[in-house]
Amino acid sequence: MEAGLFTANNVWMMVCAGLVFFMHLGFSFLEIGLTRQKNTVNILFKNVFIICAGLLLYYVGGFNLMYPGFEDGDIGFLKFAGFGIAAPENGMTPAYADGGYTWWTDFLFQGMFAATAATIVSGAVAERVKLGAFMLFTLLYVGLVYPIVGSWQWGSGFLSSLSFGEAEGFHDFAGSTLVHSVGGWAALIVVYLLGARVGKFGKNGTINAIPGHNLPLAAAGVLILWLGWFGFNGGSVLSADPALTSLVLVTTSLAAAAGGISSFITSTILYKNYDITMFLNGILGGLVGITAGADQMSPNEAVIIGVLAGIIVVFGIALIDRIKLDDPVGAVTVHLICGIWGTLAVGIFGNKAGLDQFLVQLAGIGATAAFCSCFAFIFLFTIKKTMGLRVSEEEEIDGLDIHEHGMDAYPDFRMNQH
Amino acid sequence: MEAGLFTANNVWMMVCAGLVFFMHLGFSFLEIGLTRQKNTVNILFKNVFIICAGLLLYYVGGFNLMYPGFEDGDIGFLKFAGFGIAAPENGMTPAYADGGYTWWTDFLFQGMFAATAATIVSGAVAERVKLGAFMLFTLLYVGLVYPIVGSWQWGSGFLSSLSFGEAEGFHDFAGSTLVHSVGGWAALIVVYLLGARVGKFGKNGTINAIPGHNLPLAAAGVLILWLGWFGFNGGSVLSADPALTSLVLVTTSLAAAAGGISSFITSTILYKNYDITMFLNGILGGLVGITAGADQMSPNEAVIIGVLAGIIVVFGIALIDRIKLDDPVGAVTVHLICGIWGTLAVGIFGNKAGLDQFLVQLAGIGATAAFCSCFAFIFLFTIKKTMGLRVSEEEEIDGLDIHEHGMDAYPDFRMNQH
Amino acid sequence: MEAGLFTANNVWMMVCAGLVFFMHLGFSFLEIGLTRQKNTVNILFKNVFIICAGLLLYYVGGFNLMYPGFEDGDIGFLKFAGFGIAAPENGMTPAYADGGYTWWTDFLFQGMFAATAATIVSGAVAERVKLGAFMLFTLLYVGLVYPIVGSWQWGSGFLSSLSFGEAEGFHDFAGSTLVHSVGGWAALIVVYLLGARVGKFGKNGTINAIPGHNLPLAAAGVLILWLGWFGFNGGSVLSADPALTSLVLVTTSLAAAAGGISSFITSTILYKNYDITMFLNGILGGLVGITAGADQMSPNEAVIIGVLAGIIVVFGIALIDRIKLDDPVGAVTVHLICGIWGTLAVGIFGNKAGLDQFLVQLAGIGATAAFCSCFAFIFLFTIKKTMGLRVSEEEEIDGLDIHEHGMDAYPDFRMNQH
Repeated sequence: MEAGLFTANNVWMMVCAGLVFFMHLGFSFLEIGLTRQKNTVNILFKNVFIICAGLLLYYVGGFNLMYPGFEDGDIGFLKFAGFGIAAPENGMTPAYADGGYTWWTDFLFQGMFAATAATIVSGAVAERVKLGAFMLFTLLYVGLVYPIVGSWQWGSGFLSSLSFGEAEGFHDFAGSTLVHSVGGWAALIVVYLLGARVGKFGKNGTINAIPGHNLPLAAAGVLILWLGWFGFNGGSVLSADPALTSLVLVTTSLAAAAGGISSFITSTILYKNYDITMFLNGILGGLVGITAGADQMSPNEAVIIGVLAGIIVVFGIALIDRIKLDDPVGAVTVHLICGIWGTLAVGIFGNKAGLDQFLVQLAGIGATAAFCSCFAFIFLFTIKKTMGLRVSEEEEIDGLDIHEHGMDAYPDFRMNQH
Repeated sequence: MEAGLFTANNVWMMVCAGLVFFMHLGFSFLEIGLTRQKNTVNILFKNVFIICAGLLLYYVGGFNLMYPGFEDGDIGFLKFAGFGIAAPENGMTPAYADGGYTWWTDFLFQGMFAATAATIVSGAVAERVKLGAFMLFTLLYVGLVYPIVGSWQWGSGFLSSLSFGEAEGFHDFAGSTLVHSVGGWAALIVVYLLGARVGKFGKNGTINAIPGHNLPLAAAGVLILWLGWFGFNGGSVLSADPALTSLVLVTTSLAAAAGGISSFITSTILYKNYDITMFLNGILGGLVGITAGADQMSPNEAVIIGVLAGIIVVFGIALIDRIKLDDPVGAVTVHLICGIWGTLAVGIFGNKAGLDQFLVQLAGIGATAAFCSCFAFIFLFTIKKTMGLRVSEEEEIDGLDIHEHGMDAYPDFRMNQH
Repeated sequence: MEAGLFTANNVWMMVCAGLVFFMHLGFSFLEIGLTRQKNTVNILFKNVFIICAGLLLYYVGGFNLMYPGFEDGDIGFLKFAGFGIAAPENGMTPAYADGGYTWWTDFLFQGMFAATAATIVSGAVAERVKLGAFMLFTLLYVGLVYPIVGSWQWGSGFLSSLSFGEAEGFHDFAGSTLVHSVGGWAALIVVYLLGARVGKFGKNGTINAIPGHNLPLAAAGVLILWLGWFGFNGGSVLSADPALTSLVLVTTSLAAAAGGISSFITSTILYKNYDITMFLNGILGGLVGITAGADQMSPNEAVIIGVLAGIIVVFGIALIDRIKLDDPVGAVTVHLICGIWGTLAVGIFGNKAGLDQFLVQLAGIGATAAFCSCFAFIFLFTIKKTMGLRVSEEEEIDGLDIHEHGMDAYPDFRMNQH
């Protein structure tokens, strides 16, 4: 391969790694924006912890756990940690990964991805989880669960070869299931085990909105996430292939735009006001929805997938509320439900559409659901019964910032506590 | 063309598309930062709507309207929408656009540009426009006006071949006129038709400053816009040509820096205080001013253009105030006046300087002025007389967030309403 | 060289220039986040000034001062300013800089770097420095001190050829010493000369924390800086060489993550609370620490450097407090102490490790220390005795925003002044 092409590929993949890293700022802004100021430091702390710990864990073991044996038949778990074994000989040359990038770029891009799954959970548990319990959960989820599920497909595992009739393998381009649902299932379980925040559900069945304290940051978070998705999906091409990367950016952006508009219209019709949080979550729903098939869809199909994701978001959020699950930022709806939708959409639209593919997609969703839910339930239930999962009511009412951190996110401003 | 060069070109253009997208966060931060907290949700909503609707509209029709017939002589309006017609056969190969990028990258980059024109207007109408009226305006402006004007030059229309004496064609590299003035003319018209915000102008001729509520976000907005301009101007090279892209980034950044410093010095001399909003608007003025000729100027000329733009900003804002137009964020000055300045500067400085070119530049400004002003006036006047352009005084005083959105941008903070 | 490789190299370097520019937003957010709202406009003003003035000064003279004589044996100071001399003949071709980038990209990247040194000082002097004095200091520091010190190493000066035993030349890959310590020494001197903020140190030896007013922005600042470091270190390769750039991004990110985690653990053990500002400063410490040797370390060594930097940050901040220096954002610890640590680490770990190299590193640190401290002391002491360095106590208590700028960063919110 000519040096120019290899270099251009690697430049793109490094840019994408940077963009996926930047998504962590997007998630942070979104989560603190949609929650109360008294828990802001706590959420920031969790998110910064996730990036740092996630990257280190992926370095110590996750990377090799997720892509086992692709180097000289070696199993490799923890070998990356440096017990005498560094990058493979061809890791810096075009011979590695068909010239799409170097070994280090590979690690960096995948490592930035890995932390995302835990970040998704972070929003769902906001304002009531014990920090220690959540950090422990993060370590296991980023260090083990995500790489294991990822290996099923991206590590050439059983999902990647799961054929049925005409369908040849599960298809999840950039992770509607492998990233977003993996996070989403844990979010669902933990929201159930944690219970609702004080005041969310009234005694006589009322549902009380708990408004977020900083909507500019929430909106900024979504725009940063959209930009970050250029890297998340665009980098999942694993090279800078002009035709495919540019198609992927177009389908990604159109689905985002369509998700936002359809969510805004749906919620305006239903609730008679222009609700910006629905608009924003609709954009995210469109992004999650297109992620599984961003490389398979025509732009028109991307718009359809986005429109439906936007509608799903509005009804999904209402549903989660109605079954008395308290998900402060809508993470279950956006990442789990839209993740499932996007994964199924690969069997309905695009180059791979067909009943057989649809069933294979269902199987992949099912396998992920089973593994992630069971793991999350067993682990979190154990935590709940031992060290405890939730802060005390006093701590929750006062805010986690004061109790866990001894800090106030905005000490110069007088607050309306609510 | 070698694959490496094509790929590198396309990578750059995708990065630039991402940067232009990011400008929408810059505009959002700038506009909410310079207005009051009670209208924050409303402004965010408008801006998020503009990106989503703008991109979809450009997809449905704008792209083909702007670049008509360059594909097999076909007129093409709406053909992109997928009525059986997708990307051209060579759209993914170096044969398309001389190997500068693919068809999809072309669409994405131009689509991100398109929404900008409407965003400019958004700042000018802030704090008093009816959301529905503004959304309707956006649809027409992004879907029709911008692509039509754009086609005059970038779609090989009459401006691009308007020769006079030694001048061969109007020159507007990245849109001082075609983007910024297009937005600016509408901003001027709508500011006139809307009237001033309650309390802006006192009965005995006093002009009251209405300070913005979040200057850190305003400053962040300007820095993000500057970064975004790397893509806005840098991508307008339409390839990653090393010599031209790097020159363009240098002229762009030097004009921005010079605009900021000259605006700061001018305003400090005039008003005896270090006014950061003048500094920030000076940077934007420099950026708008260099946009038409960023590819034609030497660095020294870029500095001169920036210095003059910074001075223009200070006097322009004072002038707009004095003629009792209420432009909350200075959009008319920055985008219209500096846009005109930058367009004329192409006839004064740089490779194309000359009286003939100056006159051609004037003609381009005039044509844009006529078309945009007339359209904006007719459309907005009609709106004003029918559905109404402006919210009720009660709604304005309470803030648009409560009335139109039922939301508060910062519910945890106690406010000083003003 | 093939056009594709040259173009890909140049694209990467332009992206890196953009990322380093973006660091100025990171610094701004960090500094305002960690200080009080009453000085917010002042800090924003300083930082925006630094970028604009820094870039212009570097254009007028700094660039040629820093890289003297590498163009046709010419000394070149101020020749770049355009006294008839523009880019060199080969400045736009692969013949320039071995095809790594063009002359304009070179200037832009280095210019964005130059302003960083002054920005570091900006945090240390926050909340009490006279704006005029600081601006004067910036002009000299960015225009003279930074380019002179930079020329010692990057301009092929005496440090670059300082050999001792087996060591061949000082090694400072991206500026632990040449950027961060250059800023850090001035920060140390100015903190000493300025004295502590009112209320920081009690009469009976108590040390009072003065909490920052906006921790979301502080955290965002650090994440933006981390992203920016992709460009700061990644661009210091001076091409897009796949092997080296990707290694550098990996060592950079791992050191950042390790610095954060070790700082968080150390401070939690010592102070029994989860202090997010320590976590954030630990990340920055790791980044500064890896900067000198990001190209020389294995990932494991990068983790070790980061871990130690994180520990250094916690004890360093305590030490600075104990010797009664008031450094509001921890700039001396992060940039000076960790900068020294990172520079020494090149002699301890990695490809160049050895006692001889360690001593050469010490010599480089010493030379920088002597020059920067002396310059800063003489200049700032003169300022202090003439125009004055510090605002009046009344101004400090009321906040600099009202007195120097006549503005309030958040006029819609009621404040707790403290």
